[in-house]
Amino acid sequence: MTHDARRYCPLPSPFAMKRGGTLREARVAYETWGELNAARDNAVLILTGLSPSAHAASNADDPAEGWWEAMIGPGKAIDTSRWFVICVNSLGSDKGSTCAASINPATGEPYRLDFPELSLEDVANAAHVAVKSLGIDQLACLIGCSMGGMSALAYMVLHPGSVRAHISVDTAPQAQPFAIAIRSLQREAIRLDPHWKHGQYADDDYPVDGMSIARKLGVITYRSAMEWNGRFARIRLDPEQRDDNPFGLEFEVESYLEGHAQRFVHTFDPNSYLYLSRASDWFDMAEYGNGSVLEGLKRIKLAKAMVIGVSTDILFPLEQQEQIADGLRAAGAAVDFVALNSPQGHDAFLVDIPNYSRAIGGFLGAL
Amino acid sequence: MTHDARRYCPLPSPFAMKRGGTLREARVAYETWGELNAARDNAVLILTGLSPSAHAASNADDPAEGWWEAMIGPGKAIDTSRWFVICVNSLGSDKGSTCAASINPATGEPYRLDFPELSLEDVANAAHVAVKSLGIDQLACLIGCSMGGMSALAYMVLHPGSVRAHISVDTAPQAQPFAIAIRSLQREAIRLDPHWKHGQYADDDYPVDGMSIARKLGVITYRSAMEWNGRFARIRLDPEQRDDNPFGLEFEVESYLEGHAQRFVHTFDPNSYLYLSRASDWFDMAEYGNGSVLEGLKRIKLAKAMVIGVSTDILFPLEQQEQIADGLRAAGAAVDFVALNSPQGHDAFLVDIPNYSRAIGGFLGAL
Repeated sequence: MTHDARRYCPLPSPFAMKRGGTLREARVAYETWGELNAARDNAVLILTGLSPSAHAASNADDPAEGWWEAMIGPGKAIDTSRWFVICVNSLGSDKGSTCAASINPATGEPYRLDFPELSLEDVANAAHVAVKSLGIDQLACLIGCSMGGMSALAYMVLHPGSVRAHISVDTAPQAQPFAIAIRSLQREAIRLDPHWKHGQYADDDYPVDGMSIARKLGVITYRSAMEWNGRFARIRLDPEQRDDNPFGLEFEVESYLEGHAQRFVHTFDPNSYLYLSRASDWFDMAEYGNGSVLEGLKRIKLAKAMVIGVSTDILFPLEQQEQIADGLRAAGAAVDFVALNSPQGHDAFLVDIPNYSRAIGGFLGAL
Repeated sequence: MTHDARRYCPLPSPFAMKRGGTLREARVAYETWGELNAARDNAVLILTGLSPSAHAASNADDPAEGWWEAMIGPGKAIDTSRWFVICVNSLGSDKGSTCAASINPATGEPYRLDFPELSLEDVANAAHVAVKSLGIDQLACLIGCSMGGMSALAYMVLHPGSVRAHISVDTAPQAQPFAIAIRSLQREAIRLDPHWKHGQYADDDYPVDGMSIARKLGVITYRSAMEWNGRFARIRLDPEQRDDNPFGLEFEVESYLEGHAQRFVHTFDPNSYLYLSRASDWFDMAEYGNGSVLEGLKRIKLAKAMVIGVSTDILFPLEQQEQIADGLRAAGAAVDFVALNSPQGHDAFLVDIPNYSRAIGGFLGAL
């Protein structure tokens, strides 16, 4: 079963959602790398941030570069010659899993805003179904990046005994008001776009402007001011690259944001974006600890964990990784807390490959 | 001449703008507090951030609370029993000064996007005209807050000998890419609003949504994540305060932003906002120092200065105040550098009155 590209795992039908409602005939997409051993105890599951697909790395059936290409492969930090690596596309994401853009079997039409309220617990439960479907009772390691780090905490608290070791990457045990404010504004930009039409947009009548603003605001909060000082400073575009609009693009940093927005706008379904964004706001480990994040985290029983964060991350500040480390340690795990000074902000896990490789490769190598 | 409310100072006509173009029959609005002494050497000028008017404090003719009420008055940090305090509304702002919403005397219609490109040097030059019109050759102190701090640097570099002492509040010697990115996105939200109509909006067909997004993004960057963790945490609105929209307001922090936006949207002219915002991006003391901020600052000759910044300010980070302090010190001024840990972020100067009063009052008291 090596080198399969995207595969699909059907979910039990009906699939009950945490906040009410059910999905019928739902599925999640996933990809795998490496070989599951006979004991079925070498599986590593990766849960992703809001926008990536399950295509974390290239493979024989899909040689396109994956979103974590530099980290996953034979001899790499997540070594596919030892580990059977699975990446599941989040339930609610439009990269192959059932989402707001999927056909509702009850109506034959896309769900759009009739999709039930999505939580990261639903994302976790759907990923757990996919893992079980591969005959795996316990993961050697569960890795969660950004939003996927919150989904991973949900996975572990909802499925005790399902994970031996955990790597938490640039995430949080609950959404703080700054992150909620940013995401709320991203959603508002989409919802206020007249082409959003309460979710009833079409490909040729699409909330381009709202998605563009949402993406630019995302990129601003995913990176760091420090990185940009070195990278862009006050460099201006060549006059022929500028547009004629008054107040149009003039600085390199404006053009960088524009490029990111243009690449994103049509590659992510706006309604699905809204659902996943809101799910991130709702996530709160304190719900599992009578109002205390620490008590919630203490319910997660693990042998070992590594918690990685970055001092320049304004969306998931380092104090929140420390909270996760403290909670898992209080629960009895041996925890490595890795505080990096990468200049790239929240996105450092996608960019600062040397530091993340060293940390993650070292942790997995010692398992 | 005590207690006058808003007054107007005509600018020379034509008034030449730094980036080209001229204004005819232009003016700036200002207010004053206290009495100018016979020697005309007790004047303190305040240059403001992007959105405030000249009404920095109440007075007999306008008892409404001003935007820096707690700082200005008899016995307060900016003590009007000793100082003759002037606050000038920025050229280009719609609070009484000539701006994009003003009537262009050449056409009899509002300028809108025919207003010439605005720079903070123009703002500084217009304020200088107003000061001279009061018979003041040299200010005892020039105080600049936020954008007004940049205008103040322009004032001093363009008018040597016009200022004896300076207080720099939460500002920067040039716009860095993070601040440019935020402001660019605010402008884009306004420009993409279909009701903006390339500047041709009307009161009853107005870019409400774009202004709302711009303001919310402003408030997010004016405050700090740390403050909001303490203030809002994950507190939710009562069910009856929530709106029915899917993805509508649920968390207290979302309602706080909405309140700020609603109060702002119709009180600031959108085109004028665009002009002042872009002027802030353009400002760069390095232009006065052959590409070096430090060399540019070294051209400002002062006896004394105080430079205040806040560790939680993400828009004008503390390193930028330190740069100002270093430059003014290298130019020969005795400089106090005050690094505060106020949790309120960039807006601390409007909120953390005890710390700002102590610093500013102490500095002015020792003059």
